[in-house]
Amino acid sequence: MQNNFSFIILGATGDLAQKKLFPALHGLIRMNRTGNDFCIIGTGRKDFSREEFAGLVKSNIPKLHEDSWKRLEERLYYHAVDFGRPENGFKSLQQYLSTTEKAHNAGENRLFYLATLPSHFKSIAYSLRKHGLTETKGWCRLVFEKPFGSDEKTARELNREIRKVFDEKQIYRIDHYLGKELVQSIGILRAGNRIFSPIWNSENIDHVQINLIEDFGIGNRGNFYDNQGALRDVGQNHLLQLLCLIAMEIPARFDEKCIRNEKVKVLRKVKLSARDAVLGQYEGYSSEPGVGSGSKTETFFALKATIGNKRWKGVPFYLRSGKNLGRKFASIYIQFKEPNYTVFHNQRLNPNYLVIQIQPDDGMLVQLNGKVPGEKLKVMPVKMTFCHECAFGPNTPQAYETLLFEALQGDQSAFVRSDEVELSWKTIDKVTKKRPVLHPYAKGSMGPKEADEMIAKDGREWFNRIENVVQGL
Amino acid sequence: MQNNFSFIILGATGDLAQKKLFPALHGLIRMNRTGNDFCIIGTGRKDFSREEFAGLVKSNIPKLHEDSWKRLEERLYYHAVDFGRPENGFKSLQQYLSTTEKAHNAGENRLFYLATLPSHFKSIAYSLRKHGLTETKGWCRLVFEKPFGSDEKTARELNREIRKVFDEKQIYRIDHYLGKELVQSIGILRAGNRIFSPIWNSENIDHVQINLIEDFGIGNRGNFYDNQGALRDVGQNHLLQLLCLIAMEIPARFDEKCIRNEKVKVLRKVKLSARDAVLGQYEGYSSEPGVGSGSKTETFFALKATIGNKRWKGVPFYLRSGKNLGRKFASIYIQFKEPNYTVFHNQRLNPNYLVIQIQPDDGMLVQLNGKVPGEKLKVMPVKMTFCHECAFGPNTPQAYETLLFEALQGDQSAFVRSDEVELSWKTIDKVTKKRPVLHPYAKGSMGPKEADEMIAKDGREWFNRIENVVQGL
Repeated sequence: MQNNFSFIILGATGDLAQKKLFPALHGLIRMNRTGNDFCIIGTGRKDFSREEFAGLVKSNIPKLHEDSWKRLEERLYYHAVDFGRPENGFKSLQQYLSTTEKAHNAGENRLFYLATLPSHFKSIAYSLRKHGLTETKGWCRLVFEKPFGSDEKTARELNREIRKVFDEKQIYRIDHYLGKELVQSIGILRAGNRIFSPIWNSENIDHVQINLIEDFGIGNRGNFYDNQGALRDVGQNHLLQLLCLIAMEIPARFDEKCIRNEKVKVLRKVKLSARDAVLGQYEGYSSEPGVGSGSKTETFFALKATIGNKRWKGVPFYLRSGKNLGRKFASIYIQFKEPNYTVFHNQRLNPNYLVIQIQPDDGMLVQLNGKVPGEKLKVMPVKMTFCHECAFGPNTPQAYETLLFEALQGDQSAFVRSDEVELSWKTIDKVTKKRPVLHPYAKGSMGPKEADEMIAKDGREWFNRIENVVQGL
Repeated sequence: MQNNFSFIILGATGDLAQKKLFPALHGLIRMNRTGNDFCIIGTGRKDFSREEFAGLVKSNIPKLHEDSWKRLEERLYYHAVDFGRPENGFKSLQQYLSTTEKAHNAGENRLFYLATLPSHFKSIAYSLRKHGLTETKGWCRLVFEKPFGSDEKTARELNREIRKVFDEKQIYRIDHYLGKELVQSIGILRAGNRIFSPIWNSENIDHVQINLIEDFGIGNRGNFYDNQGALRDVGQNHLLQLLCLIAMEIPARFDEKCIRNEKVKVLRKVKLSARDAVLGQYEGYSSEPGVGSGSKTETFFALKATIGNKRWKGVPFYLRSGKNLGRKFASIYIQFKEPNYTVFHNQRLNPNYLVIQIQPDDGMLVQLNGKVPGEKLKVMPVKMTFCHECAFGPNTPQAYETLLFEALQGDQSAFVRSDEVELSWKTIDKVTKKRPVLHPYAKGSMGPKEADEMIAKDGREWFNRIENVVQGL
């Protein structure tokens, strides 16, 4: 349980704060993961009364729990700040915060959540510092929403600027994928199971796929998205983070230092090249609102990465993501090699694989080879499943609940360190800076045919299955 | 599909024939695994008309399928033979068989199933030979029910006698456990799955348990059982066979020669000693009908075997079986070692294990370590299941159906070879000949406490769980 804190959201009227942060705070209260000595202060350009703001927040909480909401509402405040003109707002915010936190016995422990446009990150950090909001007797932490930079150079510069006024220990770069239960469990899966630990290497693994497949477009995010593209939007962060968790060495301890050291070691060895990349853009993209005609922004990518160390010698990691594709799922697929035995020389065996399915249902599935009943030596695939929700019910914490709680606890292990964010940009820059050819693809397809050809050339195919982890077979 | 054969059952009115063999033949017909050119001849001491005998057979077939029964009945015959006075019966049986098989175009392919008391095996084999029943233009095979001998010496002698008149290629020693689907699938599980093949060794496996736990007594088998005991009744055959299938090297081919060579190689390396054996007798056993008062026959055993080769160095195989115990199940339990990592040094991990559950429901289950949701590093066991019946439905062939069909096909791979049966007796003799102390145990218990102490001394415990392989979690 976390007590004594002020949670200050910069950009509290935006989509992220409304759809994710406030519901997560409501969830933490409901799970009794907070005490009573805390307050939440929303800030934004717009003028709201405290009541109006509470109404807005309330309207965005799914499955509202009345008691928890009451506890939240009693501690919820709003203070207008124009991030474009920081002189005006931050001084008064300092006073407002100081008064409010005293009223709630919040102990001068302050968490500032920067849910604004990335272009405001630097000036907000400086303003917080300049106006004394970060000089506290308790702890003071800043959470930065993604994207943190747009390439290695800008990320490095942003890190440099922010670290002039804050210590790395205070900086929490969020990637909400790292808060997902199943993603958080990868370390335990790998380190806690003798069934998997000895075979987690190039001797036994044929290849890995990380797929984040979306069946929807860019919505009203055109302005933002067109400057990003799929690689920057999800490649540099979610997909590379998943790759790190699968590929890193098991750390000596599961703490923030050891985990992030190991992720950085892997990132240093990841090799990506524009030659092994296929980019795509869905037909009609350039007519989307906010998108420039003739846009060269990719809405799809398929990459082949390798990792230059002994454990992963010769094992490709295929990463793929796209908008407006024919289905919607996110999973990590680990295909094992054929067994070493020749005993089935007349039969083509299906591969053993492990799927860590993140959505739609979260669970794990192992495909094995079993015997066709009544047939002496005929082999068929059989599946073993573990459904996360089946076992734990729908009360499993959501990603933002987990991450906000960990930030409040001062646990940085699931947040991205400065060297990590720079290295992941450096890795993705290898492709983005080369501007590979953009292949059009039809909405509802699985992306450009060139992506299929890329993996087929290696004698493999994309794993497009959504496994039934709930019912098993 | 198997066509053109005569199936002759010696001892056709006994329990085994009635409860297992005829239902299995009915099942094979129902599954269309026979053509139409065959006949079945029952023999026994009693006098029956053909119709009377058909009535008896019919009354013992569960889930009778009318069409299949009709096809069976049209091909079903009875001929009385007194196995105690073979001169009388076998000559006329020869003529009867010859006429009958012609009428059914059975092609002089003959399978003799010896479902009699073992004491008749030798004389029946000689009589069949003497009266010309085994001189055929087609094939001729003999299936021997267990027990085949009662120790190494008697098995060796029986082998020698029978092999004077028949070739090993004609001799099918049955162990119905080898016909069970899940048992038949062990080879495929091991050889066909890269997830298991690299970890199937002493480096990764802590120990193996083979449990055949029964919650019923000896019924009306007292006369027979009291001369056998649990070790001879199920230890020498079922449990040692399962041990062989788990422990043997994967053969170059899954054929009768290679499989049985590998099983024999393991048997040669199995070490059992009376010092590591606990025998028990349930309270009240000596008052059972057919049992002598003061009987020293064991109805329970717990053994610790080791296998003197590189793959299994230091890995104990615990074998346990008993009557009138507190539950009823049969399974192979393979416990893996703890992972090599120190990352969980503050937590005691549950072991990874694989259960091959033969009954009550047949299926496989893997226990892994997963993450407790919402708790950063807390580990809890999670289970992945594969249910055989769920996947394949209730039409999976029964053990006797499978084995009878394989014998008709001339496939000996799931039958016990002469050297195998002798070696398994030799292995069990190490305990039976030493007559270890007999510990009493209460009905409904899990056997004498000395069995628990035996395994506890090694820091382990008996796996007494019946896993829910059907519903999974």
